[in-house]
Amino acid sequence: MDRLADLATASDDAVGLTRLFLSPAHARAAEMVKGWMREAGLTTEIDAIGNVVGRTPPRPDAPTLLLGSHIDTVRNAGWYDGNFGVCAAIEALGVSGALPYNVEIVAFGDEEGVRFPATLAGSRAVAGTFDPVTLALCDADGASLGDALRQFGCDPAAIPAIARSPEDIAAYVELHIEQGPVLEAENLALGIVTAINGASRFAVTVTGAAGHAGTVPMALRRDALAAAAAMITAIEMRAQETPGLVATVGSLSLRPGAPNSIPGEVRFSIDIRAPEDNTRLAAITDIRAALANIAERRHVAAEMTQIHDAPATPCAAWLQDQLAEAVAAIGITPFHLPSGAGHDAMAIAALCPVGMFFVRCKGGVSHTPDESITGEDADLAVAALTRFLRNFKPRP
Amino acid sequence: MDRLADLATASDDAVGLTRLFLSPAHARAAEMVKGWMREAGLTTEIDAIGNVVGRTPPRPDAPTLLLGSHIDTVRNAGWYDGNFGVCAAIEALGVSGALPYNVEIVAFGDEEGVRFPATLAGSRAVAGTFDPVTLALCDADGASLGDALRQFGCDPAAIPAIARSPEDIAAYVELHIEQGPVLEAENLALGIVTAINGASRFAVTVTGAAGHAGTVPMALRRDALAAAAAMITAIEMRAQETPGLVATVGSLSLRPGAPNSIPGEVRFSIDIRAPEDNTRLAAITDIRAALANIAERRHVAAEMTQIHDAPATPCAAWLQDQLAEAVAAIGITPFHLPSGAGHDAMAIAALCPVGMFFVRCKGGVSHTPDESITGEDADLAVAALTRFLRNFKPRP
Repeated sequence: MDRLADLATASDDAVGLTRLFLSPAHARAAEMVKGWMREAGLTTEIDAIGNVVGRTPPRPDAPTLLLGSHIDTVRNAGWYDGNFGVCAAIEALGVSGALPYNVEIVAFGDEEGVRFPATLAGSRAVAGTFDPVTLALCDADGASLGDALRQFGCDPAAIPAIARSPEDIAAYVELHIEQGPVLEAENLALGIVTAINGASRFAVTVTGAAGHAGTVPMALRRDALAAAAAMITAIEMRAQETPGLVATVGSLSLRPGAPNSIPGEVRFSIDIRAPEDNTRLAAITDIRAALANIAERRHVAAEMTQIHDAPATPCAAWLQDQLAEAVAAIGITPFHLPSGAGHDAMAIAALCPVGMFFVRCKGGVSHTPDESITGEDADLAVAALTRFLRNFKPRP
Repeated sequence: MDRLADLATASDDAVGLTRLFLSPAHARAAEMVKGWMREAGLTTEIDAIGNVVGRTPPRPDAPTLLLGSHIDTVRNAGWYDGNFGVCAAIEALGVSGALPYNVEIVAFGDEEGVRFPATLAGSRAVAGTFDPVTLALCDADGASLGDALRQFGCDPAAIPAIARSPEDIAAYVELHIEQGPVLEAENLALGIVTAINGASRFAVTVTGAAGHAGTVPMALRRDALAAAAAMITAIEMRAQETPGLVATVGSLSLRPGAPNSIPGEVRFSIDIRAPEDNTRLAAITDIRAALANIAERRHVAAEMTQIHDAPATPCAAWLQDQLAEAVAAIGITPFHLPSGAGHDAMAIAALCPVGMFFVRCKGGVSHTPDESITGEDADLAVAALTRFLRNFKPRP
């Protein structure tokens, strides 16, 4: 917890914590992490994509376990998202004693995707799926990712060389704050992740007929907002039917948007996530049908356009088992839950089996300065990770 | 129709029609109207509040019938709202021949309430309900109503003197475009107004809990937009239950308002109108209860604050009867409907019985350049008004 407080001082803003990929604050945080890795007996480097990597003394012919999370943050962030997983991995490895396999801890630098219009550059590079085209993407000040890497001291040309080989890597395990309220509601400090939810996002436009709020009788209206309200209710009901599925209408705008005008057009977003792709795709089919049905019944037009689609990332069952054993060993009932948020594990899944576990966070709140975890929960998370490391068996 | 086209050239904007109270365009329009009144044999004046008044040669001891509508417009207006009622009254009076009572046609100057933060100044002055405090209200350029009147050539100190006496005035009759789609749907050129709807307006704030669209399970959400959607549906259903009642949610905003965030707060408007006050008040009671119920069920807070309230203005039954007789006499089935929009008749109702009738407008569209009526319908309206004038009997 002291290290997390120290790490929070590495901020691009004077007030609060903002640490963007390849920024001066990122460089300071990377140096701090490198120092702690060295104290834990690791050899360290900052790789070609800006990841901080710490390695146990090499055991040739032994498999390698990757541990990690990220040290970039959103703007005006909390202290724990990403950073906790990195600090906890160093802490656990430092106390776990000699292990019969290699461990690499990676502090990824670009999970939040705030600075450049792309994300997971660090974990994609490690997984061998980094697209060089990304190097030409520019931040808000017009600096390209390639230039920013060079300024950070990295060599973009060396990125392909840092891709790990699937034969060498046994698994990737990431500890992260939950960023949701489930563990708090379950009164549990830790939970084992079943999958990182697949996510689809849609833009919906409902077109009815604007009119005077006083002069158009109810029966002659084609009110786009009344139609959208029915659609929002249908979306919510469909999500409530299926455990693990979530669907959210998070943004909505309307025209003309005056108290005395019947809305003629409404635009809203739909975000649909589920731990299994079939669950999500079935929900999309049903929601599409429900919206079409409501539109037809109300004589409005509804257009539902997909703008994002990412499949689910299942966590390996055998890693879930070993994490559950470790959690149980420190006296916590193993509880499994999906991850609604994205993580570096999504990219690393292209390389090797992935496992994740969560630590409870207060109120389920994340991405704000109010984000918090307790020292007790942090200790339990490190104890569970230590137990996991001591007992880890690569897939039989 | 030619006069309406001429009148539309009196605009404060080079493109489109905008004619604000006491503006140069208003002065030009007033002069045009005065000229047409004189051609119809009326004596004319511009009174202390900027109304154009035309009077038939005085018949002492005979009662007086007021006819009128307004010649101010909204910004980027249509040609017919208000202006049609004034031109039609002049036209009908010009062809109706000698009448056994006095007629005054008033072209009111401030029905839309666009320039100053008040409305119906002209009709209130005639009705004797003009509040002198209004003279201190300023327009967007900082000019007070009092100063604007003086610049227009009016004497604000003389406003109280233009209040008519209830003993002298038998009735007020206003012809107006419908500004709604009912007559078009009924395939009728004309309709008799039963009442100008009472109107109440509310601001609602729904407060739930913001959260991550991916990490908060449906069962743990307090989604302010999902709650608002249920409320919008309840409001619509309640309005649909009662003929003549309309309820509209016309504006809505939400926070944080991002596709991946559960909405924590939603603000929306409710506009409720009905021809009878009891109908409107009963609907308000039911809607208030429905919103409280939905809020309680969903564990969100809902605050519903009244920000406007105006009672209904019933049209006198005996005037409706005489207007219906006139409409029937020209071969149109008399059809009665409420007015959802406000009119000068609301203010004049403090002085005398009021009656209104509507002419169909295309698509129910008003307050835009698309506003239109047909020449045939305009002729029918003038014919019905002429018949009404010839047969008018003050209340028995």
